[in-house]
Amino acid sequence: MNNTHQDTQAAKWWHTKIIDMKPGEIRYHGYAIEELIGRISFADMVWLMTRSELPSQAQSALLEAALMSAVDHGPQAPSIAIARMAMTCGSSLNNAMASAVNVLDDVHGGAGEQAVELYQTIHARLQRGEPLTNATAEGLDAWREKHGKIVPGFGHRFHPIDPRAPRLLQLIDEAAERGEISGQFASIAREIEQQLRKAKGKPIPLNIDGATAAVYAELDFPAPLARGLFCLSRSVGILAHAWEQKCQGGRNKGPIPKGWLWQYQGHPPRHLEGKKSVNN
Amino acid sequence: MNNTHQDTQAAKWWHTKIIDMKPGEIRYHGYAIEELIGRISFADMVWLMTRSELPSQAQSALLEAALMSAVDHGPQAPSIAIARMAMTCGSSLNNAMASAVNVLDDVHGGAGEQAVELYQTIHARLQRGEPLTNATAEGLDAWREKHGKIVPGFGHRFHPIDPRAPRLLQLIDEAAERGEISGQFASIAREIEQQLRKAKGKPIPLNIDGATAAVYAELDFPAPLARGLFCLSRSVGILAHAWEQKCQGGRNKGPIPKGWLWQYQGHPPRHLEGKKSVNN
Amino acid sequence: MNNTHQDTQAAKWWHTKIIDMKPGEIRYHGYAIEELIGRISFADMVWLMTRSELPSQAQSALLEAALMSAVDHGPQAPSIAIARMAMTCGSSLNNAMASAVNVLDDVHGGAGEQAVELYQTIHARLQRGEPLTNATAEGLDAWREKHGKIVPGFGHRFHPIDPRAPRLLQLIDEAAERGEISGQFASIAREIEQQLRKAKGKPIPLNIDGATAAVYAELDFPAPLARGLFCLSRSVGILAHAWEQKCQGGRNKGPIPKGWLWQYQGHPPRHLEGKKSVNN
Amino acid sequence: MNNTHQDTQAAKWWHTKIIDMKPGEIRYHGYAIEELIGRISFADMVWLMTRSELPSQAQSALLEAALMSAVDHGPQAPSIAIARMAMTCGSSLNNAMASAVNVLDDVHGGAGEQAVELYQTIHARLQRGEPLTNATAEGLDAWREKHGKIVPGFGHRFHPIDPRAPRLLQLIDEAAERGEISGQFASIAREIEQQLRKAKGKPIPLNIDGATAAVYAELDFPAPLARGLFCLSRSVGILAHAWEQKCQGGRNKGPIPKGWLWQYQGHPPRHLEGKKSVNN
Repeated sequence: MNNTHQDTQAAKWWHTKIIDMKPGEIRYHGYAIEELIGRISFADMVWLMTRSELPSQAQSALLEAALMSAVDHGPQAPSIAIARMAMTCGSSLNNAMASAVNVLDDVHGGAGEQAVELYQTIHARLQRGEPLTNATAEGLDAWREKHGKIVPGFGHRFHPIDPRAPRLLQLIDEAAERGEISGQFASIAREIEQQLRKAKGKPIPLNIDGATAAVYAELDFPAPLARGLFCLSRSVGILAHAWEQKCQGGRNKGPIPKGWLWQYQGHPPRHLEGKKSVNN
Repeated sequence: MNNTHQDTQAAKWWHTKIIDMKPGEIRYHGYAIEELIGRISFADMVWLMTRSELPSQAQSALLEAALMSAVDHGPQAPSIAIARMAMTCGSSLNNAMASAVNVLDDVHGGAGEQAVELYQTIHARLQRGEPLTNATAEGLDAWREKHGKIVPGFGHRFHPIDPRAPRLLQLIDEAAERGEISGQFASIAREIEQQLRKAKGKPIPLNIDGATAAVYAELDFPAPLARGLFCLSRSVGILAHAWEQKCQGGRNKGPIPKGWLWQYQGHPPRHLEGKKSVNN
Repeated sequence: MNNTHQDTQAAKWWHTKIIDMKPGEIRYHGYAIEELIGRISFADMVWLMTRSELPSQAQSALLEAALMSAVDHGPQAPSIAIARMAMTCGSSLNNAMASAVNVLDDVHGGAGEQAVELYQTIHARLQRGEPLTNATAEGLDAWREKHGKIVPGFGHRFHPIDPRAPRLLQLIDEAAERGEISGQFASIAREIEQQLRKAKGKPIPLNIDGATAAVYAELDFPAPLARGLFCLSRSVGILAHAWEQKCQGGRNKGPIPKGWLWQYQGHPPRHLEGKKSVNN
Repeated sequence: MNNTHQDTQAAKWWHTKIIDMKPGEIRYHGYAIEELIGRISFADMVWLMTRSELPSQAQSALLEAALMSAVDHGPQAPSIAIARMAMTCGSSLNNAMASAVNVLDDVHGGAGEQAVELYQTIHARLQRGEPLTNATAEGLDAWREKHGKIVPGFGHRFHPIDPRAPRLLQLIDEAAERGEISGQFASIAREIEQQLRKAKGKPIPLNIDGATAAVYAELDFPAPLARGLFCLSRSVGILAHAWEQKCQGGRNKGPIPKGWLWQYQGHPPRHLEGKKSVNN
């Protein structure tokens, strides 16, 4: 990047390894954009941008699957409801998407990231030679001690079995059979599921966050990127619902039907005591 | 969706054609998620969610190209700079993405949407039998009268030729040759470019917004979705830069290097007159 | 602002009349911060920052009233609901406030700004010597022709009379009687109300947006700042509700009670035709 | 809140102690809005909404001071820069405020909250009878062990002495002398400052976050509300800068002057190996 107009200190302040530009030239991690267009998929581009290399075909296929499987869980999800409400407030699609993606915070959007972290600690134990059962039991204990009793990526308040989870594990299995990936993270996820079932006496099944986390861990994404990738994925559902709401119309859509109210549980009516007045 | 626990009025308040759920079952526009996983790409899912049908292979390929080509234009773009700054403020990736996507407003994110609108008005004239030259000239006049002199999708302050634009038009041409799409919107874009060059006496070349708009118009997306799709696309660059900044570290990164200041052009130093005091 | 480390071009790029800083010194519009602290109110500071001068006591009192009167309209308002939902997603207060303030867009947050604009066009007619009745009738006609039938600042779907509106007008009247302001914008607001009642055959009463707009117009704020000031005001309710929700607890609070679902109105179940597969 | 149209379960789902509404009636914590308008200040309303009671005059005066003192620290602050950049992207004021407030995260907006927490742990030791010196030393040790070496609320990279801090402490002192508050948190802040100076051999002076935290702690606000209050405060500067930028004009304002670029440090130019193609 040599440009006579640029100031060196400022140029360093904004240094990056992602994109290089000259007039008429744009390169991402070294590849000229016109060479990439038409030859790699949108998901390949996600990989290139976040990993600095292009994915293999096997990696690409798994990333596609993880990204497309978490796009939407309906208008009861706060992210989706917020996107729909925003559109009735006069927002443009980008604003609605922003307000919605913004709430993919630790509780609504963090389970995948946390599950990757959990899997990785168990995987590190496997690498040190511990058998799967022990590594998982100890990993779970360590997790709970540090983070509390919720095991991220497992359990669902609505689905007895999350239909996305077994299918994603199956894709991992198939890729592992073809020797494309290790498959270890699917084993870890299944072992956690089994130990939770034993401990609780009922199934606490793998959910979408836990399943995509297994994929992302197989693909060696750092844990925080699992949340970032989920944001990309859920942005699709957010966009679709925002647009549908725009087409449906409505103004200032509240959470419950017009005319319904909330329950008030506070102070009974009262009056200002004494006489108070501003600035007099 | 029959659920004994639900209240009918509230259920109607949140009606949708996008997603249906029963315990253990999730369907998008009628397709069970476990059938889709591993068989359609992320971009296919974008299409299904926003269009209610799956794309053909030709449609899918063009959508992939448009989505992957606009992911990033470097840290001088406000969206990218904001994502990087946000991470140094302690934001999670979802928050950084939200603040950044939020500024893809009319000026930074609206050109694609506006270009689709412009193309569509010219296309409507073609459909009524006007020749391309006239349809374009009149479409441009009508646009300028309503929206002012900026023609969305054309001109670039940095690139003499935006390397993404000709490549995207080429993909449209090739698909049109194969009979997959009409190709008319590439013709419209080229005709606008030519008329602008004549009028200005210098090239005002098609840029990425104008080129992706040609793709989205060919694929028959409503104009506002062109902005929505750009938000999905740019979210990838936003994520990549946010993550890179996180790895670089830094605290409260300002726009210019630490220690540099802004220029103050306001009131010279002055004192409060009289004695004023709060609440006394 | 003289700093040897700064680059002149960058300093100009970020020029401002609002704040000047030297090490150990901070001035807003010329006033040293330590002189202001304890002597002007928060609302005075809002005025100083947006208007570059300190308000008179009369101006300050009216601004306080307008700001404090619009803080909250309960959890049916999208902004408030979103703030509450956000907190259950794991957001910090700043994130919840951001997602909520973000939806104070044209429909949810723009009525005050639009009402100021409307009042100003009528006021301009008064200045040209037109009597109030004509100026208002013509101003309303011109508004409707340009913006459609909704008259911003009037009518309420819930309150037959918005209890905030008459009280705010009364404050304007009292200040006008004391000769502090003109009082003309209260007259304009009342005349619009009367003409709407005649035209519709039923009351379309002044609401909070129309009443605060009368205050902001009296105080000579540019119309867009009416929205900005409303954002400051509503931020208080947003913060209060976000915090209350945090104290109540809850995870991923959807818009309707847990277990309730939306109504699905889309495609019946269907299967993928042919065999499609990613990247093969 | 009795409304025949409301559904009880949904009403409970959105229960609140803050606001009660009937047609024509709005009450905050029991007070009818029309009684409050013109009699309490904007800052009083902040207190009422977050604390459920009205402040005393002394409490109100201190809250005014803390809120008005932290509104702005210039365009080098990420929050302010983002607000200005957003406006040049076509954002409305509410959107610009949202993107900016959103980055008041742990690093940029969390120091006040953290300082309140720190002060409170030291205060708890005082309450148990420990002398100030010990309580502070032990409190600091405990803090550093848990959170690392940065002591929130102390030190400034630009100001040798933050001019806002001594003035705010002075207001606490004066109120304490009048018997309105305990004044203990000013003592704690000063003791921390002194111990840091001794430990480092140079002044690490109290900054605006630490000073407002002393006020908020005196006023018995829960720590997270210190961040919420800072968001309200900084929103004023964000609004003022956003509006100034709007008046200045500009399109897609990048962080550094137009024409300047970033430094690229990544892969040298390279080509796609093999032939890859989407969906074929």
